[in-house]
Amino acid sequence: MTAVEKTEPQSGEDRLIAQYFRPLARHPGAFGLMDDAAILTPPDGSDVVLKTDAIIGGVHFFPDDPADAIARKALRVNLSDLAAKGAEPAGFLMSLALPADVDEAWLAAFARGLEADAEHYRCPLLGGDTDKTPGPAMISIAAFGLLPRGSMVRRSGAQAGDAVVVTGTIGDAALGLRLRREPGAAARWGLDSAMREHLAGRYLVPEPRNAIAAALRTHASAAMDVSDGLAGDLGKLCRASGVSAGIEIARVPTSDAGRAVLAAEPALIEAILTGGDDYEVLCTMAPDKVAGFRAAAAAAGVAAAEIGRVGAGEGARFLDAAGKPVTFARASYSHF
Amino acid sequence: MTAVEKTEPQSGEDRLIAQYFRPLARHPGAFGLMDDAAILTPPDGSDVVLKTDAIIGGVHFFPDDPADAIARKALRVNLSDLAAKGAEPAGFLMSLALPADVDEAWLAAFARGLEADAEHYRCPLLGGDTDKTPGPAMISIAAFGLLPRGSMVRRSGAQAGDAVVVTGTIGDAALGLRLRREPGAAARWGLDSAMREHLAGRYLVPEPRNAIAAALRTHASAAMDVSDGLAGDLGKLCRASGVSAGIEIARVPTSDAGRAVLAAEPALIEAILTGGDDYEVLCTMAPDKVAGFRAAAAAAGVAAAEIGRVGAGEGARFLDAAGKPVTFARASYSHF
Repeated sequence: MTAVEKTEPQSGEDRLIAQYFRPLARHPGAFGLMDDAAILTPPDGSDVVLKTDAIIGGVHFFPDDPADAIARKALRVNLSDLAAKGAEPAGFLMSLALPADVDEAWLAAFARGLEADAEHYRCPLLGGDTDKTPGPAMISIAAFGLLPRGSMVRRSGAQAGDAVVVTGTIGDAALGLRLRREPGAAARWGLDSAMREHLAGRYLVPEPRNAIAAALRTHASAAMDVSDGLAGDLGKLCRASGVSAGIEIARVPTSDAGRAVLAAEPALIEAILTGGDDYEVLCTMAPDKVAGFRAAAAAAGVAAAEIGRVGAGEGARFLDAAGKPVTFARASYSHF
Repeated sequence: MTAVEKTEPQSGEDRLIAQYFRPLARHPGAFGLMDDAAILTPPDGSDVVLKTDAIIGGVHFFPDDPADAIARKALRVNLSDLAAKGAEPAGFLMSLALPADVDEAWLAAFARGLEADAEHYRCPLLGGDTDKTPGPAMISIAAFGLLPRGSMVRRSGAQAGDAVVVTGTIGDAALGLRLRREPGAAARWGLDSAMREHLAGRYLVPEPRNAIAAALRTHASAAMDVSDGLAGDLGKLCRASGVSAGIEIARVPTSDAGRAVLAAEPALIEAILTGGDDYEVLCTMAPDKVAGFRAAAAAAGVAAAEIGRVGAGEGARFLDAAGKPVTFARASYSHF
């Protein structure tokens, strides 16, 4: 032959990228996924906020979860960190490792889910890498956010006297995971089908709080997303800030489904407070800013609840209705 | 207990990060790996060049390769793309999936290799994610480079009449991989131990050409790194630029070891030209810029050779000593 690409117009990898992922890469800096690298052009005076998080089949999702939900989860766990830092999503890179049994239908659904979320959160695919793996599917995303220079909301800014605030509801995903593993629990907990679906959905596809990024920048002294469990994550925030926190468990926001579970099995408060996968925002702020923050969050469609106070010293304490500290067997999820 | 972190100061994951990776995260934007995200502050007027590439045990490296070499390869395959685009390394995120049998010695060696390269290439660890996996080890890195706005060297800028230039030597890594799979080939090829080590080393740890990033920005009309084989990658560059290219095979630079292999088994020219893992820079430039580019590259310690010309039309042709186009069974490596 005279020309390599006349007889070999595209490798299978090129075809896969062209068919499923190039349609998502409409940002000019993605170069249609046809260059070695992508470009992000931050407005002068910006910081670029960088985050990477991976999800692995059999670890962070069930291999038989719908492919579109897997894609959404992979992107959203990263979007959640950008939200908590007060950054506006600017784009992402994806490294995709696929087992041999992944078929075209799976890929099509995966790309569809990814595209829907990339559009919804205005976080375009900028580039990626696709490999076969002898292991489970792994989706590693690096997401980029922008914000005015120096305005990232850190974990380390909490001050004694600040209010502790959390968005949405806590514990749903942990309960959803239990339901997934033990479907019979729904009957024991007396859940109707709407409650079951709520909990299952909260585990399957998180709801990152990107709508409140700007409100966090203007109100919060410290923030992080709750991914490994409220108790453990609050401990991390306290450690980073050199403060303590006291949380009234009764004020931690739970869903109707979560309250139904607690009514049936009160001991599950530990799963709610330590289970993780919440992808809510945990933040601190001066008490006189709470009302304004809650109003701004509500205007963006996000509920926010004050759950306790920051103090001097160290340690995150969770207090029962009698004001007594509660003990947990394990404060948060860890892979090691 | 009263405080979560008094009895549970750190999860295993936190300890692993603190022990092995925090010492690498000295860049102020990494926040000591103690926040949800990192920050990159590009100088005003910059573009951020973004690249992600993953390597997987059993696919891109042998699971029993030295852990420090695995870490270096993971970072260098990304640095190579930054180099080819003319970008100066600014930092990276790493998503690390580890099988259960990884031990502390492996982690210590991995971190040591990563740290050495992060320092050498001035590309600091900014953040990451660590998970256990039931599959093979997977290291997914997203690397970031900086350059003056609009100055990224694209794949698509090659012009008819340009010279085609490639750095270093081609084919060593592909031959090194063959040696790794078939150690007996060394005797058949008549390689001495230095030649064997050269080829093995070129497969194990690539040499990204970041030293010539600035020279590429000022000289090259188009560039990419050679990762999937010179023939296939040149085809991609031609396709992106809407041009053809004619390469004189005799001018493609090979190492002493590569020439020894070719003398023993001339048919391996195909493995050399299509095998991949070279991580050299393939670029095009106006013919009157070649001498200046070669001098600038040489000053940076990088050899560069002119191997052919860009023409009108399409397709990458590889010509033998008689000027006859050579046919390849497969132009480049593909995972699918």
